Amino acid sequence: MASAVIDRSMVEQIVRQVALEYLHKSQNGKAPVLTVQTSSRHMHICREDMDVLFGPGSELTFDRPLFQEGNFAAREMVTVVGPRNRLISNLRILGPMRNASQVELAFTDAIMLGINDIPIRLSGDIADTPGAIIIGPKGVVELKQGVIRAAIHVHMNPTEAAYFGVSQGDRMKLRIGGEAGLTFNNVHVRIDPASRLNVHLDTDEANACGLHLTKDIELYK
Amino acid sequence: MASAVIDRSMVEQIVRQVALEYLHKSQNGKAPVLTVQTSSRHMHICREDMDVLFGPGSELTFDRPLFQEGNFAAREMVTVVGPRNRLISNLRILGPMRNASQVELAFTDAIMLGINDIPIRLSGDIADTPGAIIIGPKGVVELKQGVIRAAIHVHMNPTEAAYFGVSQGDRMKLRIGGEAGLTFNNVHVRIDPASRLNVHLDTDEANACGLHLTKDIELYK
Repeated sequence: MASAVIDRSMVEQIVRQVALEYLHKSQNGKAPVLTVQTSSRHMHICREDMDVLFGPGSELTFDRPLFQEGNFAAREMVTVVGPRNRLISNLRILGPMRNASQVELAFTDAIMLGINDIPIRLSGDIADTPGAIIIGPKGVVELKQGVIRAAIHVHMNPTEAAYFGVSQGDRMKLRIGGEAGLTFNNVHVRIDPASRLNVHLDTDEANACGLHLTKDIELYK
Repeated sequence: MASAVIDRSMVEQIVRQVALEYLHKSQNGKAPVLTVQTSSRHMHICREDMDVLFGPGSELTFDRPLFQEGNFAAREMVTVVGPRNRLISNLRILGPMRNASQVELAFTDAIMLGINDIPIRLSGDIADTPGAIIIGPKGVVELKQGVIRAAIHVHMNPTEAAYFGVSQGDRMKLRIGGEAGLTFNNVHVRIDPASRLNVHLDTDEANACGLHLTKDIELYK
């Protein structure tokens, strides 16, 4: 009997319905609020590199909170030196510390630094990426790898993922309206119970679409 | 009788068919070849400002040809000074001279210069746009207006326009594939018999999509 068959789209519809009902209860009927933010170039740092660059046992100093709970911009900054001795100074470190250091640049930054072939990666996926020299107030580190352009991505929790009908690793589209309107076609979905719905663009992406000029923004599967 | 009615879509179809046949004859059956190019920040200059900046009666010196017939990058460069005395030096002038001077910047450049609200305009449409101070080797000009971010646009000739089924002032979409793939949703159509099929991006747009990393490009209505 046809009525006994539940196909994938029907399952998705049911899951979305359940998620919607949950959201209606928990958010007074409103769909999840999407926040789109621009990440300027920055560095994540590991304990070992922190020791060299800022002194043994040094800690990151809280400057301001970031959108995702527990993340923050630190007061500490470094200078990064590229392959042809070009440099970017005042590169902000974001906390907390991580297991491996990583430098995230927009293409414009990377080209300025002489790394024209910077790979596009999700944060943390730094195998076989270019390195750089990092200069801090107390010392110098040669990063063997870790210089990436962050792939555009959306953070969300499982309820929000159910609302959109997406799974870990899926790609979504993000349409930005306005005069410089465009649609990002490869927005990586990153699901974590601690996350808040939030798309991260880099400065090239934000400036290409004139993100600051529009509120007409749509995230969809 | 229904057969006597020719609606707009039918007309478009006929025009496209005629254009296709023309293209088949003239290009051995190949669709028009699309070239997508990045325009770095640059200036167009008028006779009067040329006189002040480079000396009375001075002419632009040919450096290299641009894609559109007759256009060229000149050897002459200027410094542009923004509202808070920030500056961009080595701003290239593109020839030939025009009726009005104009500075075209990417958003990243404009923000660097302190013009955060730079308007997005088609080239030549400079009424009520910000100005800037321009410094040349022989003098200084205060541009009252003319600093814009160029709206993304495609140049084509009437045959190519018929092939795509578009008219002057229409908007098209440009899909760029690859890891940083995106679709520009507002590509202005500029039709001129002397034009060659060619999309102009600025550096923000080119870097946002990693234009140099892909050949998967599609222009459509």
